[in-house]
Amino acid sequence: MRDDNCIFCKIAAGEIPSATLYEDDDFRVILDIEPASKGHALIIPKEHYANLYELDDELAAKAMVLAKKMITKLTDILECDGYNVLQNNGPAAGQTVFHFHMHLVPRYKNDNVKIGWKLGKLTDNVKEEILNKICEK
Amino acid sequence: MRDDNCIFCKIAAGEIPSATLYEDDDFRVILDIEPASKGHALIIPKEHYANLYELDDELAAKAMVLAKKMITKLTDILECDGYNVLQNNGPAAGQTVFHFHMHLVPRYKNDNVKIGWKLGKLTDNVKEEILNKICEK
Repeated sequence: MRDDNCIFCKIAAGEIPSATLYEDDDFRVILDIEPASKGHALIIPKEHYANLYELDDELAAKAMVLAKKMITKLTDILECDGYNVLQNNGPAAGQTVFHFHMHLVPRYKNDNVKIGWKLGKLTDNVKEEILNKICEK
Repeated sequence: MRDDNCIFCKIAAGEIPSATLYEDDDFRVILDIEPASKGHALIIPKEHYANLYELDDELAAKAMVLAKKMITKLTDILECDGYNVLQNNGPAAGQTVFHFHMHLVPRYKNDNVKIGWKLGKLTDNVKEEILNKICEK
């Protein structure tokens, strides 16, 4: 599967040059050109899937194992102190390229990168509502 | 494997009550008690692994397939518009409970949840430095 209008299809296929850190039959891992921190990379499957909802199960499984492998190797190389692994689905979630990808964001002590949220509170009403709905499905 | 001092080991084992959305032999999925948005859930393996660096490969693979399954089901239930799947490793990355977990954060149009970063720029120097180092490994 391929979408001829998709920039990540072209990057994954090697038709558009990228700073490639790793490649196999299923994936290309590249440096993000607009990094959150030094070494920010993207895991991109070679086949076109818009998001995690659509991604083939076998590739989903492989993607997480590859994420583990890459952050292990890159932590050694970059001498970073941790990693955020982030995967966005849909414009409401901040996805801007509609070809599944995983962000691997190396983190350094006091790097001033902020990936988080304001802590809310789970109310009893919301809890009951969701638990009831999921039981019905 | 289990860490008797780990709250997520106790939650995963059912010894501490939680709003459980899903459970199988390997994982428990619960509502986060300090949600970023309505329906924010956590995937927690029953065995203790501190982070993705340590997580067993087979469980890493299963976790991502489960994430796909859960966001598909929950998008239907919550009528949300997208999802962030986020997994933090190390205090520098904002990890606060040192038992591997994945955040499933439902996103709604105009929800004012901010999960992102200031866009940087990949310089040629940094690109060359990292590509050279990864080739040496």
